[in-house]
Amino acid sequence: MQLTPITPARPVKVAVVGAGSMGLNHIRVLSEFDDERVQLVGVAENFTANLERVINRFHVPGFADYRTMIEQTRPDLLVVAAPTQLHHEVATFALNAGCHTLVEKPIATTIAEAEQLVALAAAQGLRLAVGHVERFNPAVQALKEQLVAGNLGKVFHLHARRLGPYPPRIRDVGVILDLATHDIDAMLYLTNGGVEHVSAETQRLVHQTHEDLLLGLMRFDTGAIGMLDVNWLTPTKVRELNVTGERGLYTVNYLTQDLYFYENDYAPTDWEVIGSLAGVSEGTMTRLKLRKAEPLRLEYEDLLRAITQGVAPTVTGEDGLAVLRIAYRLMEAAQTGRVVSCAAQQVNAR
Amino acid sequence: MQLTPITPARPVKVAVVGAGSMGLNHIRVLSEFDDERVQLVGVAENFTANLERVINRFHVPGFADYRTMIEQTRPDLLVVAAPTQLHHEVATFALNAGCHTLVEKPIATTIAEAEQLVALAAAQGLRLAVGHVERFNPAVQALKEQLVAGNLGKVFHLHARRLGPYPPRIRDVGVILDLATHDIDAMLYLTNGGVEHVSAETQRLVHQTHEDLLLGLMRFDTGAIGMLDVNWLTPTKVRELNVTGERGLYTVNYLTQDLYFYENDYAPTDWEVIGSLAGVSEGTMTRLKLRKAEPLRLEYEDLLRAITQGVAPTVTGEDGLAVLRIAYRLMEAAQTGRVVSCAAQQVNAR
Amino acid sequence: MQLTPITPARPVKVAVVGAGSMGLNHIRVLSEFDDERVQLVGVAENFTANLERVINRFHVPGFADYRTMIEQTRPDLLVVAAPTQLHHEVATFALNAGCHTLVEKPIATTIAEAEQLVALAAAQGLRLAVGHVERFNPAVQALKEQLVAGNLGKVFHLHARRLGPYPPRIRDVGVILDLATHDIDAMLYLTNGGVEHVSAETQRLVHQTHEDLLLGLMRFDTGAIGMLDVNWLTPTKVRELNVTGERGLYTVNYLTQDLYFYENDYAPTDWEVIGSLAGVSEGTMTRLKLRKAEPLRLEYEDLLRAITQGVAPTVTGEDGLAVLRIAYRLMEAAQTGRVVSCAAQQVNAR
Amino acid sequence: MQLTPITPARPVKVAVVGAGSMGLNHIRVLSEFDDERVQLVGVAENFTANLERVINRFHVPGFADYRTMIEQTRPDLLVVAAPTQLHHEVATFALNAGCHTLVEKPIATTIAEAEQLVALAAAQGLRLAVGHVERFNPAVQALKEQLVAGNLGKVFHLHARRLGPYPPRIRDVGVILDLATHDIDAMLYLTNGGVEHVSAETQRLVHQTHEDLLLGLMRFDTGAIGMLDVNWLTPTKVRELNVTGERGLYTVNYLTQDLYFYENDYAPTDWEVIGSLAGVSEGTMTRLKLRKAEPLRLEYEDLLRAITQGVAPTVTGEDGLAVLRIAYRLMEAAQTGRVVSCAAQQVNAR
Repeated sequence: MQLTPITPARPVKVAVVGAGSMGLNHIRVLSEFDDERVQLVGVAENFTANLERVINRFHVPGFADYRTMIEQTRPDLLVVAAPTQLHHEVATFALNAGCHTLVEKPIATTIAEAEQLVALAAAQGLRLAVGHVERFNPAVQALKEQLVAGNLGKVFHLHARRLGPYPPRIRDVGVILDLATHDIDAMLYLTNGGVEHVSAETQRLVHQTHEDLLLGLMRFDTGAIGMLDVNWLTPTKVRELNVTGERGLYTVNYLTQDLYFYENDYAPTDWEVIGSLAGVSEGTMTRLKLRKAEPLRLEYEDLLRAITQGVAPTVTGEDGLAVLRIAYRLMEAAQTGRVVSCAAQQVNAR
Repeated sequence: MQLTPITPARPVKVAVVGAGSMGLNHIRVLSEFDDERVQLVGVAENFTANLERVINRFHVPGFADYRTMIEQTRPDLLVVAAPTQLHHEVATFALNAGCHTLVEKPIATTIAEAEQLVALAAAQGLRLAVGHVERFNPAVQALKEQLVAGNLGKVFHLHARRLGPYPPRIRDVGVILDLATHDIDAMLYLTNGGVEHVSAETQRLVHQTHEDLLLGLMRFDTGAIGMLDVNWLTPTKVRELNVTGERGLYTVNYLTQDLYFYENDYAPTDWEVIGSLAGVSEGTMTRLKLRKAEPLRLEYEDLLRAITQGVAPTVTGEDGLAVLRIAYRLMEAAQTGRVVSCAAQQVNAR
Repeated sequence: MQLTPITPARPVKVAVVGAGSMGLNHIRVLSEFDDERVQLVGVAENFTANLERVINRFHVPGFADYRTMIEQTRPDLLVVAAPTQLHHEVATFALNAGCHTLVEKPIATTIAEAEQLVALAAAQGLRLAVGHVERFNPAVQALKEQLVAGNLGKVFHLHARRLGPYPPRIRDVGVILDLATHDIDAMLYLTNGGVEHVSAETQRLVHQTHEDLLLGLMRFDTGAIGMLDVNWLTPTKVRELNVTGERGLYTVNYLTQDLYFYENDYAPTDWEVIGSLAGVSEGTMTRLKLRKAEPLRLEYEDLLRAITQGVAPTVTGEDGLAVLRIAYRLMEAAQTGRVVSCAAQQVNAR
Repeated sequence: MQLTPITPARPVKVAVVGAGSMGLNHIRVLSEFDDERVQLVGVAENFTANLERVINRFHVPGFADYRTMIEQTRPDLLVVAAPTQLHHEVATFALNAGCHTLVEKPIATTIAEAEQLVALAAAQGLRLAVGHVERFNPAVQALKEQLVAGNLGKVFHLHARRLGPYPPRIRDVGVILDLATHDIDAMLYLTNGGVEHVSAETQRLVHQTHEDLLLGLMRFDTGAIGMLDVNWLTPTKVRELNVTGERGLYTVNYLTQDLYFYENDYAPTDWEVIGSLAGVSEGTMTRLKLRKAEPLRLEYEDLLRAITQGVAPTVTGEDGLAVLRIAYRLMEAAQTGRVVSCAAQQVNAR
């Protein structure tokens, strides 16, 4: 199949596989691009009710079979928002058909599958991006800029909390692959770091087949420690990342896209009582001014740029693979009750 | 030394060893009792400036040497608020002199010392209490009542956060013995549980000799997981305990003495956007009505009752020992980089 | 013009006048209805860029002139999201053409215009609804239910805060007509009340021609006092309504759609210091479980029900008129520096 | 009566009239000064239980009659913490006896009484200070510095919220004199301003004899508007002051002594949805670093400096009189239902 070159003269043709909860988000965001930038050429979904819902609402051509869709519509970009177990199969077909491919996270169910996808994309000369969408959260981007500028000094500790109730949408993976991969990716990105070893405790309490609670510890080769506190058992939604270092504490609220900086200060207070309540030596606290935007929109802006300008997307297949490696080490640590070394592997090429 | 029996006809005579930051708190709280209940008979402190400060402010007899004080004032209750390394020596002297003894936490620097104190108190027939003061936090007490009443169902996960800046007062122990012991005690109390194994990461970043950051995982024999996130590196003070279980989440704010309950609920929302921001299925959230009070005052009310009525104090020497055992296992786990079993020991007699 | 009867067998035909910031919201929400319920037949907008944007994005027929649109598309429901100064003209044309009409708030620029619209709708036997969308905020609905159930007892005080920065969208009215009308409507609804008198202070600081700050006081005939604190001058967005009464305080956060109840309680605390910080006699605080939903969607659900079932919409033209009357009294109070009586008028028919 | 001159060589002798809730605070704070700076020579209180409580706890000489105490102890400074109705009588006696005098707020029950006290102090050459203690709140001091430095630009709007439950202590005045005087004083201080006119609504709902709710509006000659929202009817304690101006918003939390600055910014957001929730154009928000301290302690530090160095205290009798004038205008406005002019008077000499 030979694709027409993408030029400024025509929109990028995009097709989506999967019209469940996540697929619907992709379709909505794609539909909000101007017609001259993005043309949504098809949605494939084998659950009829979901397919009809998107046809009805977005007036997009629907397909029961993704292969048919790809062959008939010949998209420039194929978005894989199907269940995780299908990622490898669908992405392989798409890459073989010559499509740039965006795979929702996690990239695949096994490391072998993920490695195959990375290799295939390279062989085909196509872009393979992975949907670690928090990377495009403006608060995460701003935090990275702060760290690069040296405003925190040495990083001591990263602590992610991703808590919430069990979501109604169907899931074929546990909380490590479904949720913790967001924060693993963020931590690898923010530390540039290799992981030396991990330990973890997990529980399966509500979910039928997979773990629904993770408490994981990661030791980075920079000396920093990463903490993952992730579950589907909490009746209030928390999405937070704290990064503590030499000069203070940065806090990301993923939900509101706010970034706070608590600056170190060691001046004493005179008044013992209020001191004991509010902290004896807080410095200035600042909520940084950010330009908020929907991360999934920014992910597509990045990907359109990658496709049309021939550059790498921000979150590559290699990144998705690195995250998956760590996720599996955490599972191993939880299952064996041991500290698991990651030293032999290069988890993050950057 | 033979003590006069304590009767309603006379106040309990109390002496304090140590007039540093913590000792000052004890002295202030003791001075606020009515004279017919508590008589503050002496303060011993070998740092002259500290001693003069309390003499000047509280008009209490001061002593440079605690032995002299105990012999001259013959207190019913001796409070050990000296540096941790002196706990064993001072408490041993006091118990041998026939005084009931309150030791600040941690009970001692080694398990052997702690065991000796517990045995000595038993042999002398005296009360030995340990100053795990958070046990008297009204929010912790209320949470315990909620758990006993079965309002949470099975407990899945306990997560303590005790973060703050490095305090100016002198410390001869690290963050595990100084701070994490509060939360270890609270978790043992709330779960009634033995600990099966622990793992931990620590760092020494600012402190000269001891660790100032702990990330610790505890697996309880009830199946619950405990998480300790404790450090002296954070420029804002956080003192929080989250307990997640079958029916929802309880949150204790130790500082404000508030207890919140987020009740589980799985009703869907219609509106995707706000759902993604605020949580798709939150139930009712309640901040329970509590009668707030200063925990140290309640600790003394409890101890006076124990002394005058011949009952055990709420936090016994055995409790202090159990906490110390876990603290040492966490240190071992951090130092060896291994998961450390606690199965052989009975950490909590209750 | 003779309209085809609306039956379950066909969707309600809707056309929108105005594709600015507010019009865009209407169009988006209408486009999210299933095709068998709502058919978006046209959008009229004389600013070409805005019109092209909605044609491009929603694939809806566009018109430069609303008269042409109404005559060609013969909608069942005409939505007036044009600038306030055009409300009377457009709504009059629509009602004369036999369309049910939804006018954005405020209903019109003058009381005379509003009275004419109310009379015309009655004469035509058509539904006239006004877009006081906060009425459909689930937190406001839940609060009304609480008040009707008597859970607050007598209402003492309603306090609305609607603060934020000056919005980039074009406005032809001041902060009283643009923002305060939301809260006036909510207060009339919640109190069922007539207003006895009002006083107000306003300022024009940033806006070219109209006031951008209002502090208004309303005395209701129930004895309750209403306070309006509304401006475009605050660099953080606050949308809050506090209702204090015999049994405590209800707080609505309009933005997050949360409703809190702080229950009265007068039990004393023992500890003076924390008492002085946290309030000496707080009772239980509850955040009620609500089913969150987009208010504008609910407004349309209500209006579709009104149209198809022949019942009154929740927010009628009379309601919009009552709000406008109070708004004008507040302006008069601010301009004259006097307390202005509203006793002679029946501001709220309910 | 001839007083011994106060020199660095001897402590300032202080006596307190009134040992109720407020008097107890004064006595506690005075007792915390070093003996070489302050000597607490007596407490007078005619309610025996209260008197015995302070004698027992602070070991201070007690008197049933304040005249006897003043004559016997000859204090340098007399603190009037008696019920408001006694302020004039006690302060007059003390000034005539040659004592510098600190009167709790409000300075007196009538303007005539207040004027007499101011005149008497001037005639005697003695310091007369009034206990508007929020003036010494570090957050208020820091805000004043920010305003003087021009960091806010022109002030548009000051809004005080002082809400809470009805306190158990006995009160002989209503919420205007008891609570609103704090915020009136703060606003006069922060604006340097004369008040042009006021309007107000009040209610008496729980209190037996006086108003327990105030909603008051003040127009300053600088063009700023002040809003007072004060009551004893709210089951959660709020103590907040918002000051909005050209460059943003300052928020004081009186309870936690925090000062926040929300900086103006008008940059647009891309994402409409989160924009509608979080404010479209927020700039940086900063919580300023403050050195927290107990305001009453700072009030005494200031007063000791005034007495020993012969300078004016920060809050003079004239300040207390200016506040009382405004308080009476607000009462008049509420009672008459009219806007009340304050133009004829010079409410604040500064």
